Amino acid sequence: AAHYKRILIKGGKVVNEDCSVISDVYIENGKIVEVGPNLQIPAGVRVINATDKLVIPGGIDTHTHMELAFMGTKAVDDFHIGTKAALAGGTTMILDFVIPQKGKSLLEAYDAWRRTADAKVCCDYSLHVAVTWWSDEVKKEMETLAKEKGVNSFKMFMAYKDVFMLQDSELYAAFAQCKEIGAIAQVHAENGDLIAEGAKKMLSMGIRGPEGHELCRPEEVEAEATQRAITIAHVVNCPLYVVHVMSKSAAKVVADARRDGRVVFGEPIAAGLGTDGTHYWHKDWAHAAGFVMGPPLRPDPSTPAYLMDLLANDDLSVTGTDNCTFSVCQKALGKDDFTKIPNGVNGVEDRMSVIWERGVHSGKMDENRFVAVTSSNAAKIFNFYPQKGRIAKNSDADVVVWDPNLTRRISAKTHHQAVDYNIFEGMECHGIPIVTISRGKVVYEDRQFHVSPGQGKFVHRGPFSEFVYKRIRQRDQVGRPAAVIRKPYEGKVISV
Amino acid sequence: AAHYKRILIKGGKVVNEDCSVISDVYIENGKIVEVGPNLQIPAGVRVINATDKLVIPGGIDTHTHMELAFMGTKAVDDFHIGTKAALAGGTTMILDFVIPQKGKSLLEAYDAWRRTADAKVCCDYSLHVAVTWWSDEVKKEMETLAKEKGVNSFKMFMAYKDVFMLQDSELYAAFAQCKEIGAIAQVHAENGDLIAEGAKKMLSMGIRGPEGHELCRPEEVEAEATQRAITIAHVVNCPLYVVHVMSKSAAKVVADARRDGRVVFGEPIAAGLGTDGTHYWHKDWAHAAGFVMGPPLRPDPSTPAYLMDLLANDDLSVTGTDNCTFSVCQKALGKDDFTKIPNGVNGVEDRMSVIWERGVHSGKMDENRFVAVTSSNAAKIFNFYPQKGRIAKNSDADVVVWDPNLTRRISAKTHHQAVDYNIFEGMECHGIPIVTISRGKVVYEDRQFHVSPGQGKFVHRGPFSEFVYKRIRQRDQVGRPAAVIRKPYEGKVISV
Amino acid sequence: AAHYKRILIKGGKVVNEDCSVISDVYIENGKIVEVGPNLQIPAGVRVINATDKLVIPGGIDTHTHMELAFMGTKAVDDFHIGTKAALAGGTTMILDFVIPQKGKSLLEAYDAWRRTADAKVCCDYSLHVAVTWWSDEVKKEMETLAKEKGVNSFKMFMAYKDVFMLQDSELYAAFAQCKEIGAIAQVHAENGDLIAEGAKKMLSMGIRGPEGHELCRPEEVEAEATQRAITIAHVVNCPLYVVHVMSKSAAKVVADARRDGRVVFGEPIAAGLGTDGTHYWHKDWAHAAGFVMGPPLRPDPSTPAYLMDLLANDDLSVTGTDNCTFSVCQKALGKDDFTKIPNGVNGVEDRMSVIWERGVHSGKMDENRFVAVTSSNAAKIFNFYPQKGRIAKNSDADVVVWDPNLTRRISAKTHHQAVDYNIFEGMECHGIPIVTISRGKVVYEDRQFHVSPGQGKFVHRGPFSEFVYKRIRQRDQVGRPAAVIRKPYEGKVISV
Amino acid sequence: AAHYKRILIKGGKVVNEDCSVISDVYIENGKIVEVGPNLQIPAGVRVINATDKLVIPGGIDTHTHMELAFMGTKAVDDFHIGTKAALAGGTTMILDFVIPQKGKSLLEAYDAWRRTADAKVCCDYSLHVAVTWWSDEVKKEMETLAKEKGVNSFKMFMAYKDVFMLQDSELYAAFAQCKEIGAIAQVHAENGDLIAEGAKKMLSMGIRGPEGHELCRPEEVEAEATQRAITIAHVVNCPLYVVHVMSKSAAKVVADARRDGRVVFGEPIAAGLGTDGTHYWHKDWAHAAGFVMGPPLRPDPSTPAYLMDLLANDDLSVTGTDNCTFSVCQKALGKDDFTKIPNGVNGVEDRMSVIWERGVHSGKMDENRFVAVTSSNAAKIFNFYPQKGRIAKNSDADVVVWDPNLTRRISAKTHHQAVDYNIFEGMECHGIPIVTISRGKVVYEDRQFHVSPGQGKFVHRGPFSEFVYKRIRQRDQVGRPAAVIRKPYEGKVISV
Repeated sequence: AAHYKRILIKGGKVVNEDCSVISDVYIENGKIVEVGPNLQIPAGVRVINATDKLVIPGGIDTHTHMELAFMGTKAVDDFHIGTKAALAGGTTMILDFVIPQKGKSLLEAYDAWRRTADAKVCCDYSLHVAVTWWSDEVKKEMETLAKEKGVNSFKMFMAYKDVFMLQDSELYAAFAQCKEIGAIAQVHAENGDLIAEGAKKMLSMGIRGPEGHELCRPEEVEAEATQRAITIAHVVNCPLYVVHVMSKSAAKVVADARRDGRVVFGEPIAAGLGTDGTHYWHKDWAHAAGFVMGPPLRPDPSTPAYLMDLLANDDLSVTGTDNCTFSVCQKALGKDDFTKIPNGVNGVEDRMSVIWERGVHSGKMDENRFVAVTSSNAAKIFNFYPQKGRIAKNSDADVVVWDPNLTRRISAKTHHQAVDYNIFEGMECHGIPIVTISRGKVVYEDRQFHVSPGQGKFVHRGPFSEFVYKRIRQRDQVGRPAAVIRKPYEGKVISV
Repeated sequence: AAHYKRILIKGGKVVNEDCSVISDVYIENGKIVEVGPNLQIPAGVRVINATDKLVIPGGIDTHTHMELAFMGTKAVDDFHIGTKAALAGGTTMILDFVIPQKGKSLLEAYDAWRRTADAKVCCDYSLHVAVTWWSDEVKKEMETLAKEKGVNSFKMFMAYKDVFMLQDSELYAAFAQCKEIGAIAQVHAENGDLIAEGAKKMLSMGIRGPEGHELCRPEEVEAEATQRAITIAHVVNCPLYVVHVMSKSAAKVVADARRDGRVVFGEPIAAGLGTDGTHYWHKDWAHAAGFVMGPPLRPDPSTPAYLMDLLANDDLSVTGTDNCTFSVCQKALGKDDFTKIPNGVNGVEDRMSVIWERGVHSGKMDENRFVAVTSSNAAKIFNFYPQKGRIAKNSDADVVVWDPNLTRRISAKTHHQAVDYNIFEGMECHGIPIVTISRGKVVYEDRQFHVSPGQGKFVHRGPFSEFVYKRIRQRDQVGRPAAVIRKPYEGKVISV
Repeated sequence: AAHYKRILIKGGKVVNEDCSVISDVYIENGKIVEVGPNLQIPAGVRVINATDKLVIPGGIDTHTHMELAFMGTKAVDDFHIGTKAALAGGTTMILDFVIPQKGKSLLEAYDAWRRTADAKVCCDYSLHVAVTWWSDEVKKEMETLAKEKGVNSFKMFMAYKDVFMLQDSELYAAFAQCKEIGAIAQVHAENGDLIAEGAKKMLSMGIRGPEGHELCRPEEVEAEATQRAITIAHVVNCPLYVVHVMSKSAAKVVADARRDGRVVFGEPIAAGLGTDGTHYWHKDWAHAAGFVMGPPLRPDPSTPAYLMDLLANDDLSVTGTDNCTFSVCQKALGKDDFTKIPNGVNGVEDRMSVIWERGVHSGKMDENRFVAVTSSNAAKIFNFYPQKGRIAKNSDADVVVWDPNLTRRISAKTHHQAVDYNIFEGMECHGIPIVTISRGKVVYEDRQFHVSPGQGKFVHRGPFSEFVYKRIRQRDQVGRPAAVIRKPYEGKVISV
Repeated sequence: AAHYKRILIKGGKVVNEDCSVISDVYIENGKIVEVGPNLQIPAGVRVINATDKLVIPGGIDTHTHMELAFMGTKAVDDFHIGTKAALAGGTTMILDFVIPQKGKSLLEAYDAWRRTADAKVCCDYSLHVAVTWWSDEVKKEMETLAKEKGVNSFKMFMAYKDVFMLQDSELYAAFAQCKEIGAIAQVHAENGDLIAEGAKKMLSMGIRGPEGHELCRPEEVEAEATQRAITIAHVVNCPLYVVHVMSKSAAKVVADARRDGRVVFGEPIAAGLGTDGTHYWHKDWAHAAGFVMGPPLRPDPSTPAYLMDLLANDDLSVTGTDNCTFSVCQKALGKDDFTKIPNGVNGVEDRMSVIWERGVHSGKMDENRFVAVTSSNAAKIFNFYPQKGRIAKNSDADVVVWDPNLTRRISAKTHHQAVDYNIFEGMECHGIPIVTISRGKVVYEDRQFHVSPGQGKFVHRGPFSEFVYKRIRQRDQVGRPAAVIRKPYEGKVISV
């Protein structure tokens, strides 16, 4: 295809999750064709000098909600603006969530999402599907989605009572179906009953501002649900993925479960790694409201560093953003009642820089772990590795030239997202994407975009991801309980 | 009253939870009148020589189910036989559970229990009441029970789906009502949804014997519910009491919560401290079935010692038995399906000896801690300390002369309970009650009973136990969240 | 004795560790003669109205260093001023440390301490003895001290390299001797080698101010030594007492060890419970230097609340102060080099108020636990319970009338200690001692002292404290490892 | 070179740590030349059909002691027999330890080891060097070894008092030097003082058999030293590698430290993963003695599964064997005194199968993690990745064709090691190496060796391994503490 450039990235340090090597990277027709020293390349190739730069797999944001209709309004970053912003930040793929209304068809919702997104996306994307209610029909549609529609991950809500929340027995059924069809069960882990009660209580005490949002759902409410989800998943022997791990206690639950051998993955997000919930107590309402999301950021200021430590140590696995942006005038729907503030924050553009700054620059992780948590692990879990997530021959040419020494200051004034504030406002970050290449085309360079809506592709994800399911299958085989062989009881039986 | 003896216990080592002192104890009219060295006592007093013996507060069993109708049959130890057996083992008070059917009046059930028990009990007793469903009526009856009927503890089931189990929102409501009326919330902590699914699964795999009972409700199912109950109780700021803590993981949940400052108490039982769940795999069906109870004993053989360590360290607080005995011919109702085996084991007679053997003789705890966990702490939590639970002037004369050096071998052949087997069969125990005194009367001595049905009294327990509620109230006062004072938001609001 | 008053404390709430009761307390000849409601007392008795007040056992400060010669100067609170200040704060007994120079006789040091203290003390006191070097002579003197001199606790230093520090093999020997003679082994738990290296490093980096004091001995240095001491004590089966637990990680080590059944006690101090190490970074040198002590206060601001949680939960057991006060002009010896700042802070006067405020007023513990951690537990561990530590018939009349509702603001301007600053300066505390009674005499009332030097007595403490040694002895008896009985090996043996 | 074959491995599943792909592997001149599907290869190439087989990087045993002179005798597996046995088991590289006598030159010892090994080894190898004493000379030699001799790892002993053991201050110095020269500090983590005392105690109690070996050095002695080493390494900011992690508690220390961000690696060994310390209580002396090694295997039978869980979860990183074999007649030197039993067990041949069986077949880890822990991680830590540890273009052709479905029964009767017993005797293992290729040559196939002594090469390892040192360096840069800027103190200073 004519619009694919042939590109040689010269002399950079190619960073994969296992090691870094000074190497050239040659790209053609959207694919990486060769990786090696001193590649001899035909004329007419665009050459990018990457000396003293890193060449990394493009970021994969595991968790976005572009243009989501939610709480009476609609997220301002649509698939066009949102994915452009992603590219500017070094992210070349997003995984968004199809969220059907309760009682509605999952397939129809999926189709609607596809229609909207396909026409707008500037980078590749894929779709998780939420299971917001339970029935045989839902169960059947999950199978269709897994077998035919490229969906291998389904999110269940333990919060949002009466809207999306499933009961434990429904979670069990949904997890069992995930297992059956080879999908990964995802959970939003908060105890929805407790949140509902907590919100009533806060309002009754006259607490109506954004601080009430956190007070009505403290971190133990998240940790509890996380523990419960892990327990249910384990009795089903189903892999579990906990979206937006926001608190130290929930993260510890995930980490401890992994140490016990549970097949569970925790996803912290840029917001939780880069800022904290003290903002809910900010004296300016609009400032405070800007940070409202669920689960909330935590007021314990040691939270981000703790989450980063666990991310560095593979106690947590991947990073998303939960990017779901509402401008101040939308947040203002809840100006007199925190329960009406649309939930959501930005992140899709800044995730890579925030993690570099707080993770790599701080010395908590190295550049290889950075690649793992921003890209490779997502590709492995969701079953498109090494198509993406690695700089290697035959992989998709989603590549970023990253300068670890440059710095920038994050600001709503300069960001590319549609939202009119930024939760990381003022943060100085090392680590800047110099060039972003998506499917073999330079789409962002020198702060300029070279991309148009619909240029990204939907990534079809098959079931039974090896990275996730190899252990699951083996355990099913060797861990099956057996009945004790006994002589029948032949004694007296009371009559009733 | 003529039937109360005047008794002088001479020269024993009086053991209270805080220390032991060689001292005489003088008893009159059912009360301890004096404790001190070389007491000068009028003639005509019965003198018991306790030299080289311990003089301890009578045991309090926090958890029994005498003659409970359950799973189609009725527990064979009734209030008469059961309390006699208790006395033989050094226990002078039991707390039994009123369990109303779903949809039925708590008060009526309470009255029925009182009628049955008052006429039969050979030692003092009191009653917890189970909340097996939720309504405004139930809420009101809880208040009546607390204000007028001497009940300050209510048990909620997280298991027994469709029979007794409450949903989280109902637990929240019940806990909130407990808090309001000054009661202690108790929980049977197991995830009932998971048990229901697990049981179906085991049966479908052809596992129908007693081992299926444990396999369908592994310890994580208990630990999960324990964590959930603690979380709910904490957001309510209600004291919580976890009945029958059976597993290492559930016990750790309780212990960790206490370290975090939660007002929660864990109750291991004699069965869990003295034996384990490997018996479910026993080749003889009747043997295996005899150990079936819920939550099950755990197959991890390090469980009893772990629970005892935590009990010794005040991570767990008190001990009961869940005494609910079914003879083999009753257990046989489930001979072809473990879900039909009536749940329950013995313990009311042997609890004191088992804890002495495994706790004190082993060196894990000293005699003072033994008194705390078998008696004093129960009295404190349930608000009748120092009426009971302490050898002190003015306390009830529920006293046991205990010989720590004698041993006995537990056996169904010699025990006083009605049930025809004993889960501790063959266990050699140090520590034997030589004389048991209840309300100032020698009721058991030289292996002979001197007691008749109805001799025990109902102990009326007032609400707002100081031991439990002092911290609760103070936290309510100082821990109240406050709204942030802000200028009203006056910016634009999106119109919807 | 004429100087002992007969006193009736009327109508107060008598608080012991196990419960609180409205009761009168009658005192005569230095002893509590009766505790009960509406006591009928002969004429001529001093009556103190305690309505709406608490009547608590006088505080016991487990850790002081009055007039200690240390680091080239001498602590300004001597036994006279220090014990007067203690009384003003509601503390009626201190345990001070005899610290012989390396190579010098323990007995001679003990005699010197006794001579100094006996003449000056205004309240009862007792003495721990430090083992600052090791030899057969030291070993023998320990025995003499335990058998004849009323000392049942010996402190070993793991820090202060080349001055007081013992090697692991010496710790082993000292612990073994403690076990032999029935004493409690105490440790100052910090890794002295690492501190020495750390100090050199900080100075070499140009860090010479008080912040260097903490930086050269971060909390892991304390936690490591704590773990090591517990390990050594356990292999010896010797009880261990960790003085001044200052950090979250060290406290967790103690708590975890107790959960594992170790006989170990942790002592947080007023400084660690009431303030933190952020002060070392204060811009005013004198302010920062005032907080210098070893182990240092910790810069993690969540430390005091964590220690209090553990103290409330009996993970930590008792409280002292490490009161060792140097005025600013003494601290100034280290104005250019933090290693020369005399180590020590105040606390003996304010301990009770600080713990009430942060422990009881905050809702972390109740008044009974307050009594346990400020008094009863110390008496139990160090073997003078219930002589002290309890309001009971026959106990010493060391009693405080405590008003939990009054508040005061701590300040060097108003305190009674000799030191010219106060680390708690400005702290508002609920909980004030209204009347302090020592050995049956009102010694402090209406902010006035009625006491003279030498009025206090030395408390002789016998070995083999029951509270500590019952488990130790039992474990020795039942836990003895046994050799495997085998036939002799009769095969080939290589010749060497 | 003529002796290198050209080899095509066809149709196997190539397993690397990040994923598995069906692929051919072409080998020439000792290197992997190409990896890909359907490779077109010139004639004359040896083709190995690997259909339905795995093609994995050859195992790397991080810990051997071939022909070590120790405790008065010499290990029977020399570099020839030992490395042949390794090849038979699928291991293509070993890292052995140079252990100079106390007081002797490290360089001379290194040279001696090289001379011995170079002539005998059948597979590649490299050398760690032990630091058994401390002096400026030792320090200088470490630098020479790192700069010129290909050694980037030095082992320090915390055990073997008076023989190899270093004091804490020496550990600090040795770690600091490791940091300076870019090496990894390794520790044998056991408290040598406590072992010495424990051994005396056991002998004095008449315990002289192999059970005494474990009783005198229980696992807390290992955990303590592990914690101490980690603490020292952290204050130095030096990477740490804990050899032979043998107990649950020590493993937990490592895991917790990693979660806190420490750069520490734990190495369990085949013995600890495949068997346990109950054998020390075996009635047959020779059997029991065969398991004696330091630190000992643990009697807690849940240990191997726990270690495997942690290995699966990357809490532990790599696996060795501590292969140091003494035949029964050598073990018999300690027939009357366990302290004289030469320490050491087998493992170099069976490690891969044991880990496959207990790790992969059990479902605890997948095949990719298997490769990581048996090969890739060792190569990364010790700085020869991706030269070894990966099936990739340009990597060394150390390759094993592994059949995961075949099983074998381990036995001394059939093993290739020189020792006359096997600690895994009778263990049935899935997972068999069908073909072993070392440096591009088939060296083991159809149970036949095609290899001669000296065929292996010494692998020179450069300092400052990126995998280890990237974070270390970054932390040095950003984590440097800063002095507080203050006005000089100008107040009074006491004169002394």
